[in-house]
Amino acid sequence: MISIKNFSQLTNHLKSCPQRKRVAVVCPYDIHSEYAILRALEEELASFVLIGQAKILNHFSLLKKYPGLIKIIPVDNSDDAACEGVRLGREGKVDILMKGVINTDNLLHAVLDKERGLLPKGRLLTHLAVMQIPSYDKLLFFSDAAVIPSPTLKQRVEMIGYAIRACHKFGIEQPRISLIHCTEKVSAKFPHSLDYVNIVELAEAGEFGNVIIDGPLDVLSSCDKESAEIKGISSPINGQADVLIFPNLESGNTFYKAMTLFAGAEMGGLLQGPDIPVVVTSRSDSGLTKYYSLAMGCLISDKS
Amino acid sequence: MISIKNFSQLTNHLKSCPQRKRVAVVCPYDIHSEYAILRALEEELASFVLIGQAKILNHFSLLKKYPGLIKIIPVDNSDDAACEGVRLGREGKVDILMKGVINTDNLLHAVLDKERGLLPKGRLLTHLAVMQIPSYDKLLFFSDAAVIPSPTLKQRVEMIGYAIRACHKFGIEQPRISLIHCTEKVSAKFPHSLDYVNIVELAEAGEFGNVIIDGPLDVLSSCDKESAEIKGISSPINGQADVLIFPNLESGNTFYKAMTLFAGAEMGGLLQGPDIPVVVTSRSDSGLTKYYSLAMGCLISDKS
Repeated sequence: MISIKNFSQLTNHLKSCPQRKRVAVVCPYDIHSEYAILRALEEELASFVLIGQAKILNHFSLLKKYPGLIKIIPVDNSDDAACEGVRLGREGKVDILMKGVINTDNLLHAVLDKERGLLPKGRLLTHLAVMQIPSYDKLLFFSDAAVIPSPTLKQRVEMIGYAIRACHKFGIEQPRISLIHCTEKVSAKFPHSLDYVNIVELAEAGEFGNVIIDGPLDVLSSCDKESAEIKGISSPINGQADVLIFPNLESGNTFYKAMTLFAGAEMGGLLQGPDIPVVVTSRSDSGLTKYYSLAMGCLISDKS
Repeated sequence: MISIKNFSQLTNHLKSCPQRKRVAVVCPYDIHSEYAILRALEEELASFVLIGQAKILNHFSLLKKYPGLIKIIPVDNSDDAACEGVRLGREGKVDILMKGVINTDNLLHAVLDKERGLLPKGRLLTHLAVMQIPSYDKLLFFSDAAVIPSPTLKQRVEMIGYAIRACHKFGIEQPRISLIHCTEKVSAKFPHSLDYVNIVELAEAGEFGNVIIDGPLDVLSSCDKESAEIKGISSPINGQADVLIFPNLESGNTFYKAMTLFAGAEMGGLLQGPDIPVVVTSRSDSGLTKYYSLAMGCLISDKS
């Protein structure tokens, strides 16, 4: 089984996969989308369907260099582009959907359309990110930095399910999942800490398969063995979390942005729930983040 | 006016102050308290009253080296130590109260005692931290990482007031205060973002004096000019926040711990609200954090 501990290993693994993934990009007019597309072409990870205004896309600089690997679908506006991308996904013609220059809300409108969208009824839409941190010796997954303000217990359980499936794709046989709070104490003042008790019980009952789940724990105790020891915390996570489940959107988002800006973290992220992974990086994310998100999507959508 | 941009400038400034601050330490039995005390003695910032069990404190290694600067008050147990420390504060005999090996809850019990405590009636207890980050060219204050789960509008206003007073002590004439959220959009789904609108209005009406307050903004737009520009955000914060006000405890605490572990940030922090600053670093904080917290307390309690 592969075991992927950083983004370089991720792309090396993807290069060794026999089949390129097929990616639809909605309105790829920005430099970051172009960077991600170029790198994925160079590294032979993917082929592309670019959906957008013909007058812009016909000048796309990579068209001549990779003629067989880029297809263009002209549409009049970004909403049509979103619908077209979603249609390709629903019909199994692409493996990944990626956002270019379109508001996330507009893209999601198409993704979430009840009849013609990509999210099966009753399935949760959430965001899963993965981070490569200079001072951490493996990748760190976390959820949710982008979609659900304050998850219910049921939603937390689903978020954990997505994270576990992603971990398996990355070759982590027994993911260590830390349920984040400010301290290790359960308190009715913080309803999510009560949810955590239920989740740990579910895990102990085997509900999540071969995983280690513990919490409430803070970020330090989750990712630093020494901090946990000093605080006298005995947790099976052992300061080596693979996944952090944040209590709410504000804390997940703060983690994402603080780590990007101040900790030199490289990032990838995907919407989970739709039938195919959807890359919805924000305008302030780098081209590299878009590329890593795409690579993450390639691995997670891989059926081989 | 002094202008302090890092911890080295902070201690240099304090060395130049004519009067040592007087610090009561409750149960200073741990190596981190000892480090903070030793450094503050060496750098001539403070004198100390150590409160705790005689059999432990009489062997305190620094007693002989700094005989005139350390006084010992023997008590039977940690609760008595807390009460004694609080009494000294209330009677104006010490300028700062510092926690050693005692549960924060137990120390707070004495601090918050309605008749014999340190918090005047109606005043908010909150936590204010200050961070030195390798990749940021000034100190960054933030609140609240430790006390208030989900502040009300009134509490947010008080938190901002404390932060402004601290900034003034650090020589920041016009503090830039960023109200943190996941995006720059106001939404009823996130009640704190509605509070932010009120706070910005109060600031514009001059309620906070000479400050720049803006929000909702995320951590990136608050602290990185380029990110704000890419997102097309025009904010008077201009990517140069001095203070981040977090929407809730979970996000403030996540920031504190992620920055400590992954971004090489040095940290100081104090309880605000009591008549004298109270240092309540956690067990997993370093001796250096305790020392910087003490230094922050020395500056904030300075009346000169």
